[in-house]
Amino acid sequence: MTTGIREGLHREVLEANLAIPQVGLATLTWGNVSGVDREAGVFVIKPSGVAYESLTIDDLVTVRLADGAVVAGNLRPSTDTETHRCLYLAFPSIGGVTHTHSTHAVAFAQARRDIPVLGTTHADTFNGPVPVTRDLTEEECAKDYEYNTGQVIVDLLGADDRRAAEVPAALVAGHGPFTWGTGARKSLEHAIICEAVADIALHTMSLSPSAPPPRHLLERHYTRKHGPDAYYGNPERLTP
Amino acid sequence: MTTGIREGLHREVLEANLAIPQVGLATLTWGNVSGVDREAGVFVIKPSGVAYESLTIDDLVTVRLADGAVVAGNLRPSTDTETHRCLYLAFPSIGGVTHTHSTHAVAFAQARRDIPVLGTTHADTFNGPVPVTRDLTEEECAKDYEYNTGQVIVDLLGADDRRAAEVPAALVAGHGPFTWGTGARKSLEHAIICEAVADIALHTMSLSPSAPPPRHLLERHYTRKHGPDAYYGNPERLTP
Amino acid sequence: MTTGIREGLHREVLEANLAIPQVGLATLTWGNVSGVDREAGVFVIKPSGVAYESLTIDDLVTVRLADGAVVAGNLRPSTDTETHRCLYLAFPSIGGVTHTHSTHAVAFAQARRDIPVLGTTHADTFNGPVPVTRDLTEEECAKDYEYNTGQVIVDLLGADDRRAAEVPAALVAGHGPFTWGTGARKSLEHAIICEAVADIALHTMSLSPSAPPPRHLLERHYTRKHGPDAYYGNPERLTP
Amino acid sequence: MTTGIREGLHREVLEANLAIPQVGLATLTWGNVSGVDREAGVFVIKPSGVAYESLTIDDLVTVRLADGAVVAGNLRPSTDTETHRCLYLAFPSIGGVTHTHSTHAVAFAQARRDIPVLGTTHADTFNGPVPVTRDLTEEECAKDYEYNTGQVIVDLLGADDRRAAEVPAALVAGHGPFTWGTGARKSLEHAIICEAVADIALHTMSLSPSAPPPRHLLERHYTRKHGPDAYYGNPERLTP
Repeated sequence: MTTGIREGLHREVLEANLAIPQVGLATLTWGNVSGVDREAGVFVIKPSGVAYESLTIDDLVTVRLADGAVVAGNLRPSTDTETHRCLYLAFPSIGGVTHTHSTHAVAFAQARRDIPVLGTTHADTFNGPVPVTRDLTEEECAKDYEYNTGQVIVDLLGADDRRAAEVPAALVAGHGPFTWGTGARKSLEHAIICEAVADIALHTMSLSPSAPPPRHLLERHYTRKHGPDAYYGNPERLTP
Repeated sequence: MTTGIREGLHREVLEANLAIPQVGLATLTWGNVSGVDREAGVFVIKPSGVAYESLTIDDLVTVRLADGAVVAGNLRPSTDTETHRCLYLAFPSIGGVTHTHSTHAVAFAQARRDIPVLGTTHADTFNGPVPVTRDLTEEECAKDYEYNTGQVIVDLLGADDRRAAEVPAALVAGHGPFTWGTGARKSLEHAIICEAVADIALHTMSLSPSAPPPRHLLERHYTRKHGPDAYYGNPERLTP
Repeated sequence: MTTGIREGLHREVLEANLAIPQVGLATLTWGNVSGVDREAGVFVIKPSGVAYESLTIDDLVTVRLADGAVVAGNLRPSTDTETHRCLYLAFPSIGGVTHTHSTHAVAFAQARRDIPVLGTTHADTFNGPVPVTRDLTEEECAKDYEYNTGQVIVDLLGADDRRAAEVPAALVAGHGPFTWGTGARKSLEHAIICEAVADIALHTMSLSPSAPPPRHLLERHYTRKHGPDAYYGNPERLTP
Repeated sequence: MTTGIREGLHREVLEANLAIPQVGLATLTWGNVSGVDREAGVFVIKPSGVAYESLTIDDLVTVRLADGAVVAGNLRPSTDTETHRCLYLAFPSIGGVTHTHSTHAVAFAQARRDIPVLGTTHADTFNGPVPVTRDLTEEECAKDYEYNTGQVIVDLLGADDRRAAEVPAALVAGHGPFTWGTGARKSLEHAIICEAVADIALHTMSLSPSAPPPRHLLERHYTRKHGPDAYYGNPERLTP
């Protein structure tokens, strides 16, 4: 571990990574979670290609936010590290990022379709569709590919911190979901929900719904969990 | 726990809530079960937003049936508490209520389609389709939203206690399933069955069935499990 | 237990019943397995509506083959007991029967469609489609319903013992799969395979296959596992 | 075990076989993995029809590469042994072979459709579609059936070792997937990925994607994991 980093960050990042296979979001070593310490100017991320069952806290890699340099850790960081870094730089309010190849969310990403808002399960968390990016160009794939993978998300959302908070997930076209949140654990929670709503949406679409749910129902659900009038949950018992 | 409440009610409500993730009906903290003690004029329900793995009997919240006031417990009750209360008031014979966001039942709710009776698996428990409500109006969403969520179910069934017993489940449009029963555990059992028949129905519909099953087959199945001539089960070994 | 019954029969029937939820074929108490002792003229079956987690060997019920009378056991036998008895009487070579409400097989039963032979996974076990019965008539539902549920299977197969051995499964229209085999365990194995091939068939059909597999491929697979020239398996290590 | 065989080969083959049910790729005894020792001129494979839960290292069968003769082991080898042998002879660089009847890959095999490249999850491992073979002829089924099952794969790929390395999987028409790799464990990993991409592809196709992903994106993903410029993973922590 690195001195000077917020206590508990490594532990939270480790636990969020270990939870990926437990909640059924990963095949093999696919998927990674990071968490940031903005005061220290670094984020902590899973190493590349290491099996979850052998992953320990000492395997985590600490990366400098400013330039992506590895500042602590003995292993190479996830190949997706530059994507995480791009998102942290564009959206100052986010504290954690998760990437998975979960089945149903990837299906939407591969079909280049937004996950539409079909009900309250979606609106409880995402204040709008989970949007899909444009394709990366040949140039964006050739150079700084992973950073550009974050950049197409930023292009999609317009580097709008508020918008990133209202819909904390995006699908990279042909690739899969990236989600974020106030911390590592919250970004994982959004990955779980993104996969759940994609799964439910596929079934709903197979039933040919006649019309989308009324906007006032969706707004009610979003606002009872978010914003100044939220009344969901017991704050002292919520996971951070 | 509150003195004066039927012994065993808290334990049954706790166990039914803990069973939600075990039987695969819940993502994260979604889903809640309550049980009522009509003599004491209260019901016991899960607190809002508490993770199942940390839920204890002391976390349960006791709510007064007459006005929804919390009469015991240190946490806020489920945000869906008023929906439960509305159902208890409208249907005097029910003893427990369950709400989940289970995948296939939610898909029908989002598509605003009843779960049709396609075979004996459905007819063993539900004497008719699991019906979907109308949308809530803007006014119903703006004020007393959760109570009104119960009210659209009551409107759908006509405050008909017998009908509520024959089909102990309904889908709130754009939202998801609510189920009930003689007690907390039975309401959970109906949530499990509601999800199972929704899953089977989706597969059946993809095979384009030529005709519904004959009514006499469905009636036979319903009546062998319910009513005066029921002969299914071993009463002394049935869970309450 | 009853004296005079083949040693090990109760144990095999118990284990096959307990395996139903373990292999994912049952919701709640749905599903039952029986095994027959033809010399003793009885079969042993699961009691009605008892939870698998509380099921013990002493709960099993022994039923006389000739008339369906309970000859041992303190509980009521499965409501499906008369269906099992009908199959034992019609097909002298079978030693065990399993009934489940497994998702994909029930979908075919509800759609009144045979599970077609789409590949070697099916042909390894079933020498032809898993056929669906006609609907029961109103009279057949009104009287001796459960026995008649077996009778429509017998009508379908023509009380042909050889045919029952070649395709040891059938779907009762609007209801679900019944499977059989040389013993209780084997009938359960056929229930597992029936569900697996129904699942694969649904996915295959969604891909619009251009043509069925060639008959010589299917025959090769069936005969390498069955009949005088079979060469699959290690007999001394096979489960009975 | 046989003396003269590379140390650890039996252990790797045993563990890869035991992993098949753990990763959800097998029903009953379906599925088998082998690993080869080319210096010793033999490969080690699962015995036929033995349950995974009773499989021990002493049950494994050692088979001579040149003629398929069993040179060690007390049980009959998998009926698919000759298919494995055919693949080892045709593709000198492969060290392990896996065969399963995993649900979604079998669906593509039964529909006689390649698994198309719909995104980076596929391109990370397979540099092109997972192709499906032609049907075996009546003659190929009548004589040396299992060897010919390998031969149709070889015919499909043209005995091209490089091509076999770039797409280490094929679907035998009407049957199911065979995968291979540098060793037994790697061939199993490819079986897991083949099933995962088939599952995701089916969902993607149900969403009617407008166009395939751009070729430059797929190439980028394949080359970041394979070839001289690969930068995925931490070699010292990768499983062999």
